[in-house]
Amino acid sequence: MSEFEIDWEREKRTGVAEAVLCENKTAAQITAILRSTGERALLLTRFTVDKFEGLPEDLRDGLDHDPASLTAFHRQPNRQLVHGPGIICAGTSDLPVAREAQRTLAFHGYHAPVVSDVGVAGLWRLMKRLEEIRSFSIVIAVAGMEGALFSVLAGLVDVPVIAVPTSVGYGVAAQGRAALSSALASCAQGLVSVNIDNGFGAACAALRILRLQETN
Amino acid sequence: MSEFEIDWEREKRTGVAEAVLCENKTAAQITAILRSTGERALLLTRFTVDKFEGLPEDLRDGLDHDPASLTAFHRQPNRQLVHGPGIICAGTSDLPVAREAQRTLAFHGYHAPVVSDVGVAGLWRLMKRLEEIRSFSIVIAVAGMEGALFSVLAGLVDVPVIAVPTSVGYGVAAQGRAALSSALASCAQGLVSVNIDNGFGAACAALRILRLQETN
Amino acid sequence: MSEFEIDWEREKRTGVAEAVLCENKTAAQITAILRSTGERALLLTRFTVDKFEGLPEDLRDGLDHDPASLTAFHRQPNRQLVHGPGIICAGTSDLPVAREAQRTLAFHGYHAPVVSDVGVAGLWRLMKRLEEIRSFSIVIAVAGMEGALFSVLAGLVDVPVIAVPTSVGYGVAAQGRAALSSALASCAQGLVSVNIDNGFGAACAALRILRLQETN
Amino acid sequence: MSEFEIDWEREKRTGVAEAVLCENKTAAQITAILRSTGERALLLTRFTVDKFEGLPEDLRDGLDHDPASLTAFHRQPNRQLVHGPGIICAGTSDLPVAREAQRTLAFHGYHAPVVSDVGVAGLWRLMKRLEEIRSFSIVIAVAGMEGALFSVLAGLVDVPVIAVPTSVGYGVAAQGRAALSSALASCAQGLVSVNIDNGFGAACAALRILRLQETN
Amino acid sequence: MSEFEIDWEREKRTGVAEAVLCENKTAAQITAILRSTGERALLLTRFTVDKFEGLPEDLRDGLDHDPASLTAFHRQPNRQLVHGPGIICAGTSDLPVAREAQRTLAFHGYHAPVVSDVGVAGLWRLMKRLEEIRSFSIVIAVAGMEGALFSVLAGLVDVPVIAVPTSVGYGVAAQGRAALSSALASCAQGLVSVNIDNGFGAACAALRILRLQETN
Amino acid sequence: MSEFEIDWEREKRTGVAEAVLCENKTAAQITAILRSTGERALLLTRFTVDKFEGLPEDLRDGLDHDPASLTAFHRQPNRQLVHGPGIICAGTSDLPVAREAQRTLAFHGYHAPVVSDVGVAGLWRLMKRLEEIRSFSIVIAVAGMEGALFSVLAGLVDVPVIAVPTSVGYGVAAQGRAALSSALASCAQGLVSVNIDNGFGAACAALRILRLQETN
Amino acid sequence: MSEFEIDWEREKRTGVAEAVLCENKTAAQITAILRSTGERALLLTRFTVDKFEGLPEDLRDGLDHDPASLTAFHRQPNRQLVHGPGIICAGTSDLPVAREAQRTLAFHGYHAPVVSDVGVAGLWRLMKRLEEIRSFSIVIAVAGMEGALFSVLAGLVDVPVIAVPTSVGYGVAAQGRAALSSALASCAQGLVSVNIDNGFGAACAALRILRLQETN
Amino acid sequence: MSEFEIDWEREKRTGVAEAVLCENKTAAQITAILRSTGERALLLTRFTVDKFEGLPEDLRDGLDHDPASLTAFHRQPNRQLVHGPGIICAGTSDLPVAREAQRTLAFHGYHAPVVSDVGVAGLWRLMKRLEEIRSFSIVIAVAGMEGALFSVLAGLVDVPVIAVPTSVGYGVAAQGRAALSSALASCAQGLVSVNIDNGFGAACAALRILRLQETN
Repeated sequence: MSEFEIDWEREKRTGVAEAVLCENKTAAQITAILRSTGERALLLTRFTVDKFEGLPEDLRDGLDHDPASLTAFHRQPNRQLVHGPGIICAGTSDLPVAREAQRTLAFHGYHAPVVSDVGVAGLWRLMKRLEEIRSFSIVIAVAGMEGALFSVLAGLVDVPVIAVPTSVGYGVAAQGRAALSSALASCAQGLVSVNIDNGFGAACAALRILRLQETN
Repeated sequence: MSEFEIDWEREKRTGVAEAVLCENKTAAQITAILRSTGERALLLTRFTVDKFEGLPEDLRDGLDHDPASLTAFHRQPNRQLVHGPGIICAGTSDLPVAREAQRTLAFHGYHAPVVSDVGVAGLWRLMKRLEEIRSFSIVIAVAGMEGALFSVLAGLVDVPVIAVPTSVGYGVAAQGRAALSSALASCAQGLVSVNIDNGFGAACAALRILRLQETN
Repeated sequence: MSEFEIDWEREKRTGVAEAVLCENKTAAQITAILRSTGERALLLTRFTVDKFEGLPEDLRDGLDHDPASLTAFHRQPNRQLVHGPGIICAGTSDLPVAREAQRTLAFHGYHAPVVSDVGVAGLWRLMKRLEEIRSFSIVIAVAGMEGALFSVLAGLVDVPVIAVPTSVGYGVAAQGRAALSSALASCAQGLVSVNIDNGFGAACAALRILRLQETN
Repeated sequence: MSEFEIDWEREKRTGVAEAVLCENKTAAQITAILRSTGERALLLTRFTVDKFEGLPEDLRDGLDHDPASLTAFHRQPNRQLVHGPGIICAGTSDLPVAREAQRTLAFHGYHAPVVSDVGVAGLWRLMKRLEEIRSFSIVIAVAGMEGALFSVLAGLVDVPVIAVPTSVGYGVAAQGRAALSSALASCAQGLVSVNIDNGFGAACAALRILRLQETN
Repeated sequence: MSEFEIDWEREKRTGVAEAVLCENKTAAQITAILRSTGERALLLTRFTVDKFEGLPEDLRDGLDHDPASLTAFHRQPNRQLVHGPGIICAGTSDLPVAREAQRTLAFHGYHAPVVSDVGVAGLWRLMKRLEEIRSFSIVIAVAGMEGALFSVLAGLVDVPVIAVPTSVGYGVAAQGRAALSSALASCAQGLVSVNIDNGFGAACAALRILRLQETN
Repeated sequence: MSEFEIDWEREKRTGVAEAVLCENKTAAQITAILRSTGERALLLTRFTVDKFEGLPEDLRDGLDHDPASLTAFHRQPNRQLVHGPGIICAGTSDLPVAREAQRTLAFHGYHAPVVSDVGVAGLWRLMKRLEEIRSFSIVIAVAGMEGALFSVLAGLVDVPVIAVPTSVGYGVAAQGRAALSSALASCAQGLVSVNIDNGFGAACAALRILRLQETN
Repeated sequence: MSEFEIDWEREKRTGVAEAVLCENKTAAQITAILRSTGERALLLTRFTVDKFEGLPEDLRDGLDHDPASLTAFHRQPNRQLVHGPGIICAGTSDLPVAREAQRTLAFHGYHAPVVSDVGVAGLWRLMKRLEEIRSFSIVIAVAGMEGALFSVLAGLVDVPVIAVPTSVGYGVAAQGRAALSSALASCAQGLVSVNIDNGFGAACAALRILRLQETN
Repeated sequence: MSEFEIDWEREKRTGVAEAVLCENKTAAQITAILRSTGERALLLTRFTVDKFEGLPEDLRDGLDHDPASLTAFHRQPNRQLVHGPGIICAGTSDLPVAREAQRTLAFHGYHAPVVSDVGVAGLWRLMKRLEEIRSFSIVIAVAGMEGALFSVLAGLVDVPVIAVPTSVGYGVAAQGRAALSSALASCAQGLVSVNIDNGFGAACAALRILRLQETN
């Protein structure tokens, strides 16, 4: 009997398809999971190039692997992408996390533009893109270091804002604890947060809201 | 010139009215804020009975103060409450936080039922109310101690789930850190969290989503 | 005089045979310990492939080394395995820790089945194996991330439940602190915990209980 | 409809009766729970004298309240106490926690003797009571400060040892973190731990083991 | 011989007069210090009303005690106040700390205006006072919760910015750790920080800079 | 459209030129930034030799890269260096951080001498260089381990002192937390701190003060 | 049978008499201990005035209670005090801890002078008492806040230096963690530390060294 | 002028010779220090084989480098070793730290025997060597994991006991925090501690005591 128990009903139940977090799995374990997947769609995250290259060639060929976000699509459903959330990203170092969110949304049929390099230390950079930012119906905010972007953004827009603290920074910022605390302790109302570096989770939360809109 | 700068435009800008966190304010400071408020509506949170009784009588008379949630309404807009999010609460000790969320939603026109005492240690209690829980379009989950409720709930429903960790518990649970970590590190997809004991913030996040639905 | 002082009387005294934690030992130190062991049985844990390959060939030949659990048996007593505890494992990433527990129990004569991929985010996976889970007289629960499995399991069965938090996860979950806190702060009664990733320790605790049953 | 959902089936399901943790509950909430309890047995923990005195007189009369352990029995089943676990307690400051364990066991029908003042700084005190300690089939070890007692005890006996770290101490020991770490990081095999000051939880774990023995 | 050794030469040596932190001192110790002070000027900080009222009447009469900042002046030098740093304060709850800085500067001859209620969640409040803020040659920024104000301010002005994190907030913000981390991990260049709630220290740092300007 | 948004107006706005923190950027990202920079001056920090060697040769040729401080200058403005702050450095292990500060100041036109190996455990080493130390108008103090140098220095000079805690040390000192706490909790008045290992930030703070002096 | 097991042989075994830490004991427990003590000598620490006044009058009369150090002597041996360690104390707020050490030494027959108010921010205060400080054969150093005194002292004398970090300070210093880290991470060689606020422990360590000298 | 300022007078001043901590130094920096040392004696610690092999051959030849303790002697004074402290070591994994202490003592003329593998989980191992342990006039105790050895030892001997917590262990024990807390929070009187893994520091503390004995 297989030791993998993929939750194929998850998409129906929670609005989000099953995904496999590859971080603590070996290439052999990932191979076994893919072999049991058949023609069903599957999203793989935290899937390093090393592990990807450890797969048999036929499996590699069947995957759309993106090194910048460490994600891969297996049998991605063929959908026309529709306009989705905006991903606002403080600095270029935060881009891998932003792209994990972007790819997760693309896998589920949404195109989510990334607005980058708008850290609050140069507020004019944020301000000159404010109209674009205000055009989104959901905002995913991605920032490391002190995470001041979260509070500023949540005060500027009236749509749901999902914070993704990143592990970018050093000293007291390292591992994203400072940015996470900023998201949670924010003086701005209605801001919510996911775990550090969890671009995937932020996209899933956005998908739940989008699904709500659609069923309206 | 006054040293208080209430943000009266906030509701228009962010979908959520201005609120005053009374925790680190003296009765004198709260009095000054209320005197400058005039006939505008204002929500006050973390407003203890002691501080409330420290106000002049005429101000007290104009407030709808609720000791169970430590909130007060000043000139609450006269709205008919419409059906809103469900508030799922692990234990009776978490009720004050759940009620802060409930009152914040009521202030903005939504009736949010509280489903209480459904901690996962007795899973049948949760299961027998599952139909009711699945009827809500947004779920606010309130739990202290180890916060296992968050992951279980997020796996059972497909709508947005906002976790509110509470400071209920002792030892390693104390101050809500364990419950917060459970919300953030959850294996369930699409769960988001606010700060410990921040029922107000969870309600505000829900209001942003509700506003999105309405403008659809 | 040797600097190693193996506690050969331990099994008689505590019901659990002597074991060597190889984590902070060099291959040379492990070699010296094995040379002094003679024909006595010894369990080695956290024994990486690198260190194993650093041993002289004759010692390697005398060991039953299992890379998946990083354990090795030296002169394992020849016993017929009897039915033992059940090991319930949240995800495939937790399997190395689960297997350390399994191998430790096997070394002492018990067959402990692993029930895997039953994380609470897909509760039906756990529920459909509930009968099997309820058939065990002791449950070892292995989970990382937020560790919600511990509370759910302890509420579903009435036998002793030993939690083994694992270091699986990232951000606030990393290093297993979140899962450990969940085990300790659990709202479920009668749950006990061992150190993070300590599959060996959980098996030893189970052995003490099993010994109690046998001497009844 | 009541907001309290007592889990009356718990004892059948988990071998441990329902209990109410009074710590974050008001006297009014406890009153409501007791009024809905009827003639069923209920254990109340962390029940301070202040809260007890806040109950109506008729409810107080029906309770067996013990200030030393802050526990109360409501309609305790009339059982003859049988010989149960031993509770080994490092110092007199740890006695309230030890007594919470003792009372919880008494409520379930077991007499558990407390062996006190046997901290390892005066090892002879422990040694001179070793025979008595070795007579128990389960040991609950209660210690604060550095918690060295846990490792020493687990090395001396071969039965299950459940550590209860206490918040006794100051500086780096404060709040029981040092003792908890000692229990979890112990070099002794097979030691398990519950949360800080959780005498109730240790007793519940012991009850699960005792129930196992009985059903043998 | 006295056990107090006031550093009367400090002002000459470091540009800042001697001050007494009353936090861990008894009224009796403060009395002894004041008795030995004679006609020299002394600043007292964290001097609660309770302790002040515990002094003999003649000493109380000789002090200018300010309850809002918990500071007192003894024989303040008779100086004409000159224009000094600006103190920018996120919310009314941060005012006690802001005033400690203001009073410390006043004691040394500088008038430092407080600009209050300019938290970044309502960025327009900050923006409409930007001209005033840019008129200061040194900025002391006072904020609790997530401390996002620090980074925004340091990006808007080109003068020295000294952050004073405050212990305002709850949950992950509590005790000022989140605000402190934001100040230190800021993406804005050239921001420096003092300890949590240390309005006095920020003023002293400003005095060192002011002294430098004057000796230019 | 480029995803990099360099803040070319920063120097005019804040007195400090734009800089690029290379730590979480790939060589490809740095290349893209440099390509878009043209003839403008740019400072690059935390720029490892590995990443530098990953650049195309023409870009490498245009950079003044210093391995000891991991900084590089691109089109450094041709300025005559003027006398600047003193950098006081506890031990040789702290030199890389000290040199980051020194190079940042050089990029902006200041020569900042490093006074090294003056840790307080051998106070005479500090004392014999006291005259030199007292000659600086600003002091940047760089120390790891317990960071006692900060308090001693701040008591000896009357000019602004900026502490840079370093991650030098092990055990409780590791990662610079102990040194940072010493800087912030110092009993010396007027000491300010930047993040751990942030030599660049300390230099930027000094530049803000220097600019103030110049505009006097 | 008594639940107190005083270790009357301790002095013979360890050179230090039995002592009772009253912190987590009730007045009733202390009474019971004193009643069982008879004419033997006993030192009581952390013995608040409230608890002292909770004793029966006859016991109070037999105790030499010192409110400044919260210690009491019961049947102190009648010894002529001999010259003992020096206690060097950073500030007046640290005096209660210094006095606990002083009283513990007095109880064992040593007179230990306290040198106070010699914090390193005013190094000259330390320097002008250096000769006196160098006359001691053992130094107990007592300091809170950043604890820089420990490193400076250990570099100035060649005798054993025992650090006692105190909980004096606020923000990052609070509860003595910063001072403790400074003692442990010190760049000065041969410094040892006891727990925060543990004046008693430092005195006991000194007694072990003194005993060694005497038996020489 | 050299940037190294070796403290050649240290031995005279503090009883312990100058030593160089190589951890954060490059081979080039160590070379420069050795070149400036001439014929004077110098102890080098945390000196890895890699760095040692990075030195020029002539310097390597002049050093007595010991890989097991990562120490090296340069021009060690030619002394006859005299009987010194005993080093009691919990497990073989702690030996590198124990040997750092042993080598430091040897460099200063003392022979310090190591008593190994006497962890408290097998108390009889400690007991059977008790006579030997009691023969030492100073005890250095080396232990990782939960560090229970410290309290047990300090209760068994009456001489000074210096605890060296090690970073041996995993989970909550990792990095030595649990063992350090056990040393500091110990219920045994008169125990002192140095930093984690600081075998050198413990030896230096012992040298200060030994010097005291000698000058008696």
